[in-house]
Order: sequence, then C-alpha cells, then structure tokens
Amino acid sequence: MSGNTFGKLFTLTTFGESHGPALGAIVDGCPPGLELSEADLQRDLDRRRPGSSRYTTQRREADEVRILSGVFEGLTTGTPIGLMIDNTDQRSKDYSKISEQFRPAHADYTYHHKYGRRDYRGGGRSSARETAMRVAAGAIAKKYLAALGISVRGYMSQLGPIAIDFKSWDGVEDNPFFCPDPERLPELEAFMDQLRRDQDSVGARITVIAEGVPPGLGEPVFDRLDADLAHALMGINAVKGVEIGAGFDSIAQRGSEHRDEMTPEGFLSNHAGGVLGGISSGQPLVARLALKPTSSITIPGRSIDIHGAPVEVVTKGRHDPCVGIRATPIAEAMMALTLLDHLLRQRAQNGDVHVTTPRLGQC
Amino acid sequence: MSGNTFGKLFTLTTFGESHGPALGAIVDGCPPGLELSEADLQRDLDRRRPGSSRYTTQRREADEVRILSGVFEGLTTGTPIGLMIDNTDQRSKDYSKISEQFRPAHADYTYHHKYGRRDYRGGGRSSARETAMRVAAGAIAKKYLAALGISVRGYMSQLGPIAIDFKSWDGVEDNPFFCPDPERLPELEAFMDQLRRDQDSVGARITVIAEGVPPGLGEPVFDRLDADLAHALMGINAVKGVEIGAGFDSIAQRGSEHRDEMTPEGFLSNHAGGVLGGISSGQPLVARLALKPTSSITIPGRSIDIHGAPVEVVTKGRHDPCVGIRATPIAEAMMALTLLDHLLRQRAQNGDVHVTTPRLGQC
Amino acid sequence: MSGNTFGKLFTLTTFGESHGPALGAIVDGCPPGLELSEADLQRDLDRRRPGSSRYTTQRREADEVRILSGVFEGLTTGTPIGLMIDNTDQRSKDYSKISEQFRPAHADYTYHHKYGRRDYRGGGRSSARETAMRVAAGAIAKKYLAALGISVRGYMSQLGPIAIDFKSWDGVEDNPFFCPDPERLPELEAFMDQLRRDQDSVGARITVIAEGVPPGLGEPVFDRLDADLAHALMGINAVKGVEIGAGFDSIAQRGSEHRDEMTPEGFLSNHAGGVLGGISSGQPLVARLALKPTSSITIPGRSIDIHGAPVEVVTKGRHDPCVGIRATPIAEAMMALTLLDHLLRQRAQNGDVHVTTPRLGQC
Amino acid sequence: MSGNTFGKLFTLTTFGESHGPALGAIVDGCPPGLELSEADLQRDLDRRRPGSSRYTTQRREADEVRILSGVFEGLTTGTPIGLMIDNTDQRSKDYSKISEQFRPAHADYTYHHKYGRRDYRGGGRSSARETAMRVAAGAIAKKYLAALGISVRGYMSQLGPIAIDFKSWDGVEDNPFFCPDPERLPELEAFMDQLRRDQDSVGARITVIAEGVPPGLGEPVFDRLDADLAHALMGINAVKGVEIGAGFDSIAQRGSEHRDEMTPEGFLSNHAGGVLGGISSGQPLVARLALKPTSSITIPGRSIDIHGAPVEVVTKGRHDPCVGIRATPIAEAMMALTLLDHLLRQRAQNGDVHVTTPRLGQC
Repeated sequence: MSGNTFGKLFTLTTFGESHGPALGAIVDGCPPGLELSEADLQRDLDRRRPGSSRYTTQRREADEVRILSGVFEGLTTGTPIGLMIDNTDQRSKDYSKISEQFRPAHADYTYHHKYGRRDYRGGGRSSARETAMRVAAGAIAKKYLAALGISVRGYMSQLGPIAIDFKSWDGVEDNPFFCPDPERLPELEAFMDQLRRDQDSVGARITVIAEGVPPGLGEPVFDRLDADLAHALMGINAVKGVEIGAGFDSIAQRGSEHRDEMTPEGFLSNHAGGVLGGISSGQPLVARLALKPTSSITIPGRSIDIHGAPVEVVTKGRHDPCVGIRATPIAEAMMALTLLDHLLRQRAQNGDVHVTTPRLGQC
Repeated sequence: MSGNTFGKLFTLTTFGESHGPALGAIVDGCPPGLELSEADLQRDLDRRRPGSSRYTTQRREADEVRILSGVFEGLTTGTPIGLMIDNTDQRSKDYSKISEQFRPAHADYTYHHKYGRRDYRGGGRSSARETAMRVAAGAIAKKYLAALGISVRGYMSQLGPIAIDFKSWDGVEDNPFFCPDPERLPELEAFMDQLRRDQDSVGARITVIAEGVPPGLGEPVFDRLDADLAHALMGINAVKGVEIGAGFDSIAQRGSEHRDEMTPEGFLSNHAGGVLGGISSGQPLVARLALKPTSSITIPGRSIDIHGAPVEVVTKGRHDPCVGIRATPIAEAMMALTLLDHLLRQRAQNGDVHVTTPRLGQC
Repeated sequence: MSGNTFGKLFTLTTFGESHGPALGAIVDGCPPGLELSEADLQRDLDRRRPGSSRYTTQRREADEVRILSGVFEGLTTGTPIGLMIDNTDQRSKDYSKISEQFRPAHADYTYHHKYGRRDYRGGGRSSARETAMRVAAGAIAKKYLAALGISVRGYMSQLGPIAIDFKSWDGVEDNPFFCPDPERLPELEAFMDQLRRDQDSVGARITVIAEGVPPGLGEPVFDRLDADLAHALMGINAVKGVEIGAGFDSIAQRGSEHRDEMTPEGFLSNHAGGVLGGISSGQPLVARLALKPTSSITIPGRSIDIHGAPVEVVTKGRHDPCVGIRATPIAEAMMALTLLDHLLRQRAQNGDVHVTTPRLGQC
Repeated sequence: MSGNTFGKLFTLTTFGESHGPALGAIVDGCPPGLELSEADLQRDLDRRRPGSSRYTTQRREADEVRILSGVFEGLTTGTPIGLMIDNTDQRSKDYSKISEQFRPAHADYTYHHKYGRRDYRGGGRSSARETAMRVAAGAIAKKYLAALGISVRGYMSQLGPIAIDFKSWDGVEDNPFFCPDPERLPELEAFMDQLRRDQDSVGARITVIAEGVPPGLGEPVFDRLDADLAHALMGINAVKGVEIGAGFDSIAQRGSEHRDEMTPEGFLSNHAGGVLGGISSGQPLVARLALKPTSSITIPGRSIDIHGAPVEVVTKGRHDPCVGIRATPIAEAMMALTLLDHLLRQRAQNGDVHVTTPRLGQC
C-alpha cells in the first residue's frame, strides 16, 4: 500500500536506499519448476549497470545479486525469492549542504513535505539505484515468459532531439545507447560529447516491444493491460509520458486509418500496439516512454532551503548526462513484470477457456 | 483482481453491460460526514450524457443515478455507497450478424479469446457506457476534494488535427466540445460536419488539471502519483497515450530548461506537471491524454468471423464520431478518484507529519 | 480496503443497510461459462430468509435477488455479476430513542466512535441483513465448486447448552435448526419455547464441512487456507470463535494422537481438519464456529446515551432469539467463497503442476 | 497474493527457508519519525529464540537481525524497512530419506501436491523458523503502538491438559513458559520432563491481550478487527483455533449474561473481548489461540512416500516438544501487526472524526 510492491499475482517488493548497506527485493508468486540461477539475473543487471561506458555515471557498482530463498536444487519452489545486492561504492562525502537544500527537479522538496525527513545521501530512496531490483526481478519474469515464446526487448528511439528509426535488433546490445541503427552511433556520440562540454543533460525516448504475447491478457475495465503497463512504465524514475501503439499520433488519425483491419492471414497494421479494449490481441505489444533530462547538472540553479531561504544549487557528483541511456533494461523489466502478472491473472480466471477460432498472425 | 475495482483506499467497483438492465457501482472508503445527494452526481453525468448535442451519439439515456446506501440524513456514513443507473434506451435490434463477427479496432476479438464468449449487444462490458459509473463516483471524489480546496477540471486541447490553445476556463462548459477558446468553435463545428459527411471518425486530446493539490501525495516507488494517474487515464476507453507536465516534449529538453527552479515566491515553471519523484509538489497537476478515433464507422472494413473466414464489416448504429468529445468528464473523474485515493493513503501513513518549511506557491 | 470486499481473485463487494432501499453486491472474477440464473441463488437465500419458522425473526423479507449483469444467454461471461435485493419490509417506526442510545453488545457504540454518525434504523450496516448478499454470492461459488465435485455443507452442532452429534445429512434441510439428528428436534423446540418465555437469547455452534477439496489449496505463510477461512467465518456477525479440525481439543492432545497417519489407502484420521501447513490435504475441510447469543432482547439492560448519561435499554422489535439458527447458510457461503478464491489462486501460480504421487482418499 | 504479505497499510512481506542462507523481510508503511534500532527488534527475537531453555529445541540460532534500509539517523524515514537474519546453524545432515517421505501432520504432503517440489531440509518454507521475521516486524509495530499507549502482551494459559489461570504479568517474562502464575512452574516442568521421557509432544493455549486500544479500529463488514485477528493468529504455524472474548463459551451463554452492560463509569464486563460489530470498543482486546502438539516426534508413525508406498517415519533432530511454548511472542507480534494496520486504516478514512461522547473506561 505504501507503494513498494508491484503486481497482484507475480509481485515484486523492494527496499533500499542509494547509500544504505544494501538493496533488496522479494519476488512472490513465481511458479515452481523454473530453472533459475544468479547468472540469469546478472545479465540484465550488467546491461543496466553504471560505469559501463563513458556516457553514463562513473559510480562503479558491482551490482552482484544474491538469491537468498525460493530456489532449491536449481529450480524455483513457488516460495518467495529473496534478492540482495550490497552497495559497495558509497563514497563518503560531505552532505551537510545538500541535507538542507532542495535540488530543483529532484524529489527532495516532495519527500520533505511528505515524510518530514529524508535520507539525503545520493537521493536516498528516490535514487534510480532502486531500479536495479526491478531489473533483477524483471529478468526472472523474462525467463519465465521466454519459455512460453514471449520476448520483451527495447531500444532507444530518440536521444534529445535526435530521433532514431528502428533498423534491426542486431547490434542493439553492442552499443551503450541500445541504438537500433549502428550508423547513427557517431552522431549520438558527438551529441553526448557536446552535452558533456555544456555540462547539461537531455531526455530520451525508449521503445519496448513484447512479441509472442497470446491474445486474452488484460482485465477490463480498470486493470487493462495497457493501463497497467502505463502504471509500470510511468513508475520508472524520470518518465513523463507513455504511449501505446500509435499513441499521441492517434489524435489526428481518422477511424478508417487507425483501425487495424483483419484478414485470415493476420492483422494488416498495428496502430493499436497489440491491445484492444485493454486486452492483448496477439500482435506485438508496443510501448514508448519519454524520459526527462537528468536533474543533476553542474549549471547553477535557483532553489530554496528547508527554511524557505533562497539558495543556489550546483549538483556535483557522478551523474548520467542522460538517464534514458540506461533505461532500456528497466523498461523491459517493467513490461515483463506486467505481462507475467497478467498471464497469471488470466490463468486464474480463464485458464480453461478454449476457442476454436484461429489466432491471427502477428503484424 | 478481475480489474473491476479502482483504487486502494477510496475504491470504485463497477458492473454493467451496455444493453443489460442496469449499470451499478459500489464506492467504498468515502469518509463519513460528506454532504451528498443524487444531484451532486447528476451534474457530471449530464456533462457526459449521450445525445446532448449533434456531435455525439444519438442514443438517448436519461442516466439518472440513484444512491442506494451509504448516505443517511444527507450525509455519508462511511459505509459503502451503492449506485445504480437503469438502462432505458436499449433498442432491440438484430444482433445475429455482429454476434459472429469481430469489428476492427473493437474489443470483440480480444474478449472472444479471453472469455470464450461475450455479450455482443452494443459492445457489452467493453462499451464506453460503463464510464457513466466512473463519472458518478468521480463526482463524489470531486466534492470531497473541493471541500479541501482542490479542483479538478479538464478541456479539449486537440480535435483531430486541430490543436486548441487554452484561453480561459470561462465558456468551457458552454460548448459540447469542452473547448477552452470560444473563437475556435466554428472551426470545430465545420470540421465535425465534414467528418460526418465523410462517415469517418477522429481522435482527440484532453487536458486535465488539478489545482490546490497539497505537496506530499503519491507513494514511491511503484505507486507514484503520476504512475497511478497514468493507470487511471490509460484505463479510459480509447486512450492510447498519457503524459504529465512537459511529457513527450521532455525528450528534447535540456536539464537546465526542464528543471523547475524554485524561489521563495514559488516555482518558476511547471515542466514537471506537479509531480517530483512520484509525489505531488503543490503545483498544478497537469495530464494530457490521447484518444483514438471511434472504431464504429460506416465505411466498410475487412475482418474475420469467429470461424476465421473473411468478412466485410459495416458498423451501423448511433455512434460518437469522436469519442474524445465526451471524455473530459471521464478524465476529470479518474484524476479525482486517483487524487482522493492518494490523499487517504497519505493520511494513513503520514497524517501526523508537520514541516515548518513554507509551501511554495503554485505556478 | 474499507472492508466491504472479500477475496482476492473471486471477490465479493457488498453494500446496503437494514432499512435502506436495497442491498446489493458485485461478484467479480467468476470464470466464464458457468450456467447461472436467479433460481440458483434463491435456494440458499430462502434457507437463510427471516420469517420462515417461529424460531426466527418475524420480519418478512421476500429476499428476491436480481442478477443485473455478467450473465448472458444463461452463462456467466467473466464480467462482474451485479446483484440486488430490494428491501420490502422496512416498517416505519419511531427511532428517536434508539438514535441517541447505545444498545449493549451491539455495534452502536463502536460505529459511533468510528464514524461519528450511523444509520440507526435496524442497525444500519451492522445488521445481519447484510449477510443475504454473502449467501447469494456464496451460491455462485457453490455452484462452481459443485461442478468440480466439491460440496460445502453445514449443520448446527450445538444450541445453547445442547450439543448435537452428527447423525446424517438426511433431514438437515428439513428442520429450521439445520439439526443433523432428527431425534433431537423436540428437545431443541422445547428449549426455544422456554427461551422465548424467558425473553432471553442464546448462542450456537455451527459446523461446516467441504468435501472433495483437492490437495494444494492455500498459500503459505500468511494466507493459509485455514487462516483465510478463520477470517471468513469470524467476519460473520456474532461469531466469537473459529476452530479447524480438532481445534481447541488439540491443546490437550499428544503428538502421537493428533497426527493423522497416512497409508496408501488414505489418512487414518482427520484431526487436522483437512489442512496441513495451511494447505488443503484432500481430506474434508472441517470448521466450527461459535456464535454469541442475540444482543437484542427485551430484558432491560444498563447503558449510556451519546451524551454519556446512563440509560436503561429495552430492545423491542422482531429479533431472532438465536442468531445461530440462520447462520448455517452464511457459514457455508463464506467457506465456499474462500475455497473458490484459493482454487483460482492455485490455478494462477501452480496450474501446471503435476505430480505422479497418488492422492490419498478422504477420511 | 501468494500469501507472503501480511497487512494492507502496514505490510510485512517475508522470505526464507529453514536451511537457506538467510531469512528476510520488508516492512512497508511504517510512518516516519519512529526511533528505531536493531536492539528494539532483538528483544522479542530473543524471547522467541530456540535453544534458550531445555524445554525448547536445541538448535542454536543467534537470530541477529540487521536493518538494511528505512532508518536514517536513528529514525524511520517512511520508506520500506529491509530486515535480514542469517541462518547460522544449518547442520549438514543426510536428507535423502526425508526427501521422498511425507512426515505425518507436516506440510510435506501438501507442499508436494501444491508445488510439485519442496525444499525438504528442515521443513523449508513451512518451518516455524519463518516466524522469526514476524516477531521482528511485530516489534516495530509494538514500538509504534506503545508510543500511543497501546500495549500487546501474551502468556501461556494452558499446557497440554494443564490450564493456567492468570495471576499477574509479573514474572511472565522470567520463565521459559510465559506462565502467568509462578506457583505452577514446578508442575509445568514436571509435565515437560515426563513428556520428553515419553518422546511425545503436546499442545498449548496462548492468550494475547492488547490494552489501551482506542475505540473505532476495524472495518465492517469483512475486514472486522476480530476477523483480521483470526486471520493473523490462525496463520501462525500449528494454530488450530482462535477465539475472541468469551469465545466458544458464548455458545451456552444467554444474551442477558453475555452482553456487556455500560455505565458512565465503564463497561461492566468484557465478554466481547474488546470488539463489537467488528470494531474495537476501547476495552482490552482479548484473543486465545490453540496450538496443536509438535508433529516432529520420535515415536514411529505410518505414512507413505512420494511413490505412494507405505513407510514408517521417525522424525529425529532437534525439535520443540511443545511448539506453543515459544508461540507467545509470535502471537503478540501478529496482534500488534493487525492493530497497527487497522490504526492506519482508521486514520485514512476517519482520521478527522471527532465525537463528544466520552470514551468508557476499560474493563
């Protein structure tokens, strides 16, 4: 209820602050019999890990995850899976200044008013470091989904003003931007170098796609698949917008254009983004999210302190100039968690529904 | 769990099909002592009601709501509030054709695969008629919030290709479009008339704003105020995108531009849209949603039937050429429900938090 | 969250006061394809109905339930089932006295302190009349379970000081006490007649048993089947105790006596009451509940009014001298709702678990 | 949903197996500003700890708890509190036999049928070792409640056939039985010594009492305070029965006897056990629970193996001859967690209710 649990049937509950001793999570509801080891989680954690390129924060965290329960003899048992990552690179520094100031565009001001106090070291609970646990849990969900033929993948589709068309999944994992068009890499690198010289930051757009999703996932009327996905993705730090399928372009579309016609061979388009009436159609599930520019920049900004007095804030430290760059694995994780939760919900209520109508091919 | 309940502390559970005997809802968690009568609910129901202008469906429903419990001697008692609206205009018609066909862009295909059967009369449960109950419940939430100085209002900010700048709240309620600029009305009317001649439909963008929101609402890390709002708004029929504050424009913004600086006099901008770290900042809460064009149009479309055979579908009947036109009260309702739920959650955990830091003025 | 919803996957949300216009409920999560009509619900409602014998209250309610949604062409659709019962026998009477007094052992004093106000007519929301909706919803659950070979039945095992041994299910439905031993009926009738002459009331014990329950239902560690059942049964008006299997007799048992040994032919005893480690064992699920004596009696009692002044209270009206007499169908309903909820939960997470170990026979 | 989370607003989620590397928990929803350190939790953990007397299991666990998050500068921050206890005494032993056998009265058979597999070392997840985390979390709840003047205490009221009348809280903590009458200790010790010689086990009854509870806690109609308490207490390993106030004795009581009359000076009795209509009355909240005898005894018992063949089972190892002896701190923890959860729920919905009626004194 205090917001640290995600999901209804496949649930993730997390704890941990940026500069506390550890991050942890409990994954509950994982069906038994899934082959699982720490290596399965580590791959995605490494994709998200800070310090892996010169375009991300230089904080160096090993992010080594331990599985503390719920797996026995290499298989999940159906009992809760305890996860833990020790925080290893908590540089001691002087926080006396930041403890009484509100950094603009950070959660400092709102945490202060909500809780009356906050762990100000590195943003405490509001740090994006918390997303490591989402990535670890998402890897479990991905593995379960993969066994059913469902894949969840993402890429960066815009960096600041630079829109990137999708070319191919090949190579997405070979560059720190998750860029789906290798020819654009020099442009992105040049942009980031200039940004660093400007000591500024920029936003990004990430596209996440699930393929192989069976039709029938999603619960009308409130817990639609797209509504729950919007909740999942908007809940990632720095996200300011989520769209499904044609998204905001739907506004100017005509009904005769937007509707995805069907033939026995399959859907003829996918403006719906794989969801009709809140329920998956079997087409690829397509979501895009907008991430705001990093708030921590060294350009001085006006703010106030906890006494209400004006201050000038300069945020030093090791920060990502574009938080969107490392967001792809997080977005994938949140989509995977959402899908698996709905898969289990569908099993519960409609597990024995069988229709003779053939499923349409993906488009 | 089957998705027909919204909220955690202030909850709305609905039932009802388009052509069943009635729509109903249970609102649970309303604090006692709120003055409440059916007239309070009727006003918003009338704003959403079909048949109120020539730009909306000609189905004529009285949409008269009855309060069946939870109010005694004019005041809420704290017990659940039962609501009911009888369906009065369920024209008998021949559904034999539609019962075996999947209308493109409707929920027919997905309901069929999810449940194995569906009430095909008028879309059954997937009909937007269900939103009447959201509007009724939202009116209760709005009334409670209003007593605390919190207002929730919306307007249409784009109709198909026509973007509409906000001029003033005056007049928004005087036109069927909820258009905030009376000078644009002739343009909108002409557009709609041409659309009707084309027998086509179009999408829309709605902007919803809450003012007077205290800082501190929203639960990190998953149940952020913006994440829950995204869930609420994306859960409205036909919505394909949700953004908060600068939204998708954040992508191309620089950090020095996006961050809302603070002075003792208040925030200097509101790119955040009233939410920082998932928690309300005290600034106006600003959300925009994209609605797709109505799927029911008379232009023939290709589809299949439940046996997988190709069919041509023509959707006759009484339909809104732009579902977005009646969406403003629904969006307001969902924002109000989300806010009140979080207000109660904040009370539960942090009701006794007091800070001496002055609250900044709205911007 | 405000307590008017029961269950996680198969949920029941109710509304309604004793003397309001109607009682209602929404049953969400019922799998599609179940044959269902009002007659299925009416049978159990009639078993619980007041005024059906001279040993129960003489309030005469038709308790005719209407299904308002979720059923189409005689089958459930998977969408929420709206239920309603009109209150027909709300005698107008003078409530001026009761409105300011707290009847001893009633919820008057606690509602007053919780909500600050209450609908005092007939107990308002705290009236046992609310259980009609549980019985209606329970009948849906029972029907679903019956199709899987699971039965839920109950009987009265003690009336005041008179303990009743189980003889046979035959005849339980033929007497107003749900007494499983027809030879004891004269004794029960004589006892009740004397009780009425004494103008007093008395408690009762009900035994509820589910047979045909598959092994594997129940979620460790908190939502054990027995723990959820205790929640369900203790949540019935007037219940003060719940026990499973040997229950309180377990205290004095030795481990060598209590443990139910197993042979290939089956369990050799059922002290566990069908639950081991919180999970069903396949044996009959056996629960017993203790109901306190009716609080509404005409013998004067000391109390206070809302100003704190002493008053003498005499509760007139039409009351059951033993609320336990009509509690059997309610207890069955709550057990059935609990079982079906756990059946769906089990399907969600472990639906594909298959073991080759033979299931033991019931005992 | 998989049952490893307790509570709605103040939630406890646990993980861990008896012989895994660690036990852990996440406590979410603790209000900020509570002074908290590991010492606060350790006291109750030590009260429950195995190996502390010759009447309990000789497994020696340090049960040292670490707080990993949610506390900053000695005060809770409102963010989730991560807890961990390393398992230190996991004796390596040969489990080849037990892995294929079902011990009578254990969860072996039911876990096997539920999950298809199980961590058989020391009972895995079904081990009472899991309750250590409940005790740790309960200590947080107790501390919060204590600041509001609410105490939660328990004692053993029956050991096997020996009923123990309450004499005084003095001395309860000075003996390993939590016996409230020091004069009965020799009798209990003699009984336990004989039991050990018999190589058998026995049940127990625990009484838990909360004092200082304000009126108004508990949510009708399903989530009554007593119903949620029944869920909490029945969810403790080995519990087979729960009763509130007069409990099962209510059955034979008359209404004129059971009802607790009120005078301006206070209630005249407490048969209700502090709950009326599911809501706290301000009187002491009194619950009693029945624990079955320990299932692990060395007297051979008949059972089957996973292939269905008959086996003779002898459970060696270090076991409590009466699990009830260490249950008092667990029962207190579960009552405290339930109370705090309802306290927060009451704040959310009715936090601003004020009545002028004086509260009655406790009885």
